[in-house]
Amino acid sequence: MNVIVGQSGGPTSVINSSLAGVLQAAQRRGVGRVYGMVNGIAGFLEGKTVDLGERLPGSLEIELLKRTPSSYLGSCRFKLPDPSQDEGLYRRLFKQLSDLEIGYFFYIGGNDSMDTILKLSDYARAIGSPIRFMGVPKTIDNDLLETDHTPGYGSAAKYIAVVMKELIRDATVYGTPYVTIVEIMGRNAGWLTAAAALARGDDCEGVDMICLPEIPFHVERFIEKVDRMQRERASVVIAVSEGVKQPNGEYVCLLSDDQRRVDAFGHTNLTGTARYLSNRVAQALKTKTRCIELSTLQRCAAHMTSRTDITEAYQVGGAAVKAALEGHTGEMIGIRRLSNDPYQYVTDAVDVRRVANLEKKVPPDWINETHTDMLPAFLSYARPLIQAELSPIYIDGLVRHICR
Amino acid sequence: MNVIVGQSGGPTSVINSSLAGVLQAAQRRGVGRVYGMVNGIAGFLEGKTVDLGERLPGSLEIELLKRTPSSYLGSCRFKLPDPSQDEGLYRRLFKQLSDLEIGYFFYIGGNDSMDTILKLSDYARAIGSPIRFMGVPKTIDNDLLETDHTPGYGSAAKYIAVVMKELIRDATVYGTPYVTIVEIMGRNAGWLTAAAALARGDDCEGVDMICLPEIPFHVERFIEKVDRMQRERASVVIAVSEGVKQPNGEYVCLLSDDQRRVDAFGHTNLTGTARYLSNRVAQALKTKTRCIELSTLQRCAAHMTSRTDITEAYQVGGAAVKAALEGHTGEMIGIRRLSNDPYQYVTDAVDVRRVANLEKKVPPDWINETHTDMLPAFLSYARPLIQAELSPIYIDGLVRHICR
Repeated sequence: MNVIVGQSGGPTSVINSSLAGVLQAAQRRGVGRVYGMVNGIAGFLEGKTVDLGERLPGSLEIELLKRTPSSYLGSCRFKLPDPSQDEGLYRRLFKQLSDLEIGYFFYIGGNDSMDTILKLSDYARAIGSPIRFMGVPKTIDNDLLETDHTPGYGSAAKYIAVVMKELIRDATVYGTPYVTIVEIMGRNAGWLTAAAALARGDDCEGVDMICLPEIPFHVERFIEKVDRMQRERASVVIAVSEGVKQPNGEYVCLLSDDQRRVDAFGHTNLTGTARYLSNRVAQALKTKTRCIELSTLQRCAAHMTSRTDITEAYQVGGAAVKAALEGHTGEMIGIRRLSNDPYQYVTDAVDVRRVANLEKKVPPDWINETHTDMLPAFLSYARPLIQAELSPIYIDGLVRHICR
Repeated sequence: MNVIVGQSGGPTSVINSSLAGVLQAAQRRGVGRVYGMVNGIAGFLEGKTVDLGERLPGSLEIELLKRTPSSYLGSCRFKLPDPSQDEGLYRRLFKQLSDLEIGYFFYIGGNDSMDTILKLSDYARAIGSPIRFMGVPKTIDNDLLETDHTPGYGSAAKYIAVVMKELIRDATVYGTPYVTIVEIMGRNAGWLTAAAALARGDDCEGVDMICLPEIPFHVERFIEKVDRMQRERASVVIAVSEGVKQPNGEYVCLLSDDQRRVDAFGHTNLTGTARYLSNRVAQALKTKTRCIELSTLQRCAAHMTSRTDITEAYQVGGAAVKAALEGHTGEMIGIRRLSNDPYQYVTDAVDVRRVANLEKKVPPDWINETHTDMLPAFLSYARPLIQAELSPIYIDGLVRHICR
């Protein structure tokens, strides 16, 4: 029997380590060929596959793969219809799987991608297909249920914490009044924005305010808080989630005129929160402001990843292969934390029904009373995930990626 | 006799290596105390100095200093008036220097800062003061005359090239039409934007267009070029300088309504070029776009510097001390390149009059005919400057900086 693996949803810096984990575990366990879907399930439906064993024959390719950001196989944002709506698609898809003699199907992705595993495994059961479908967790957003954390988060959190330290240094250089608002990804869950709290330490005063999408956002109260902070120190640095919402539930970024103009062809794009707020603060407080959007940099900065994260991403890929070979299907590999210090964990397999299409938010009791900072419980949770580094391979002064 | 050193203008990732170079060269040559001006000449005029020998007593502090972005001493943007306009200020300043028994004065900065060296050395000559004033070149912009390149540029160029490689990978992940416009610093000189050309290699197709401020920018022609490019490939990635100007000389960013609003208190802020262009492209071509501003990240990313740059920044600091002790004054240390391959250079001292307040632009014959890419002459020039790395010191998962 052969194996097929796909990558889906937004890329991360470590999604290719999970691909390496699936590939090498399958090879070590002596299954047949390992196919990759090009551009996820959408590309597979168009018949686009590659033979990963041929494409990645040696350990040097695997090492480069682990250091290459973005999905090596390409990705998609494609939601399978219900079988009742389009059974033809399912028949075609299972025919393709059968033609390739696939016994095991792995999909590396987030809560949307787990919906694909759910539908395919349910359909397989219904038609009596022996193919096993396993999910491999991935997302910088860290919003998957039934896992302590999600591979991809640790590296993004490390990037955010390091960059915040650098930005805080930069912002204080003139000693003059200055408000810096940094916009961080996370539509409904504030895990990434919370990671800005990791910047504080002996050598860094840390960010002055953290605004999560879990907490209703009052623009006027925000400006008052900034005003009070700026009376105490010249440079105020704020981490704000792109997804903060007003008490009426509307995204703050939609208050910006500019935002509506960007959105000329129907896509809802959340960027613009920091720009809007820095404009409002500049006008209200007559102070100099700067907005910085970390944008896709936070999900593709493979030059600085967490080795813990890279290792876990690789392991959940391997664990998915092991579970599938042992008969599991319709499940996702989860990470179970045993202790913070020393940091220890195991993997297990969870019913994908408890993960698909759901979101895990930051617990309210990890946020301080004034909704401006993270409490020690969050730091204890996040700190182990950013530990250690995977040295990039530099050639001619630049980080090297795997060729396509 | 004692030494005093200050840092001025916009910070870089390697400005502290020049500070280390001045400090250690002065100590090795057995001068007296080494004072630092806090917040440059502006802070010095308020009497703010520190004893650097006490603050940075050992080699561990020096190693952390080299890895710390932004000016350790703080910076300023302060232009000395002409002595004819305010001789009192000069008398006060030289009295302060005399009280501290200063014999040698070093100022690490760009073309504005060299104006300070020019005025102070001229005044010293006029009043018969023996104090020697030397400039130490620094700027990510690489726009100083009389030096092959400027410390700070190599690290910023390396950061830009690495990040462009990552962003290009990220942008192609869905295989769908997508225009990414990345805004890079450089008000009138395109050196930093040109560095995006370094991304191209065996493992990266490179950016699709580079727009420098040296070339008049036609918005409509730009959109036509993007349209043509997108017919050939789904993902188009463009590096654009914040300083591109229309043929009438007006900055493109000023076309954005939003920009005028940001500028509520009189500062001319050039950001907004990529946002304006991505909005225009989205509307005109009905394609998905994203704008990314590298913002201050490109000048403070000390977690990824060029070792060549760090070393040169240190050396120009030391060379300034040597030159001053040998009797030079009113000069700046320049870098003279002897060959590209192998890369070899020497330092010399140049009359600061030929540097102060002037700008060096990218030579037109290093830009291709269609004004979309850099020619090999630029790559041969820039490639040596990004070579090799200085490993960051990671503690508990984060880069470590020197405490203040």
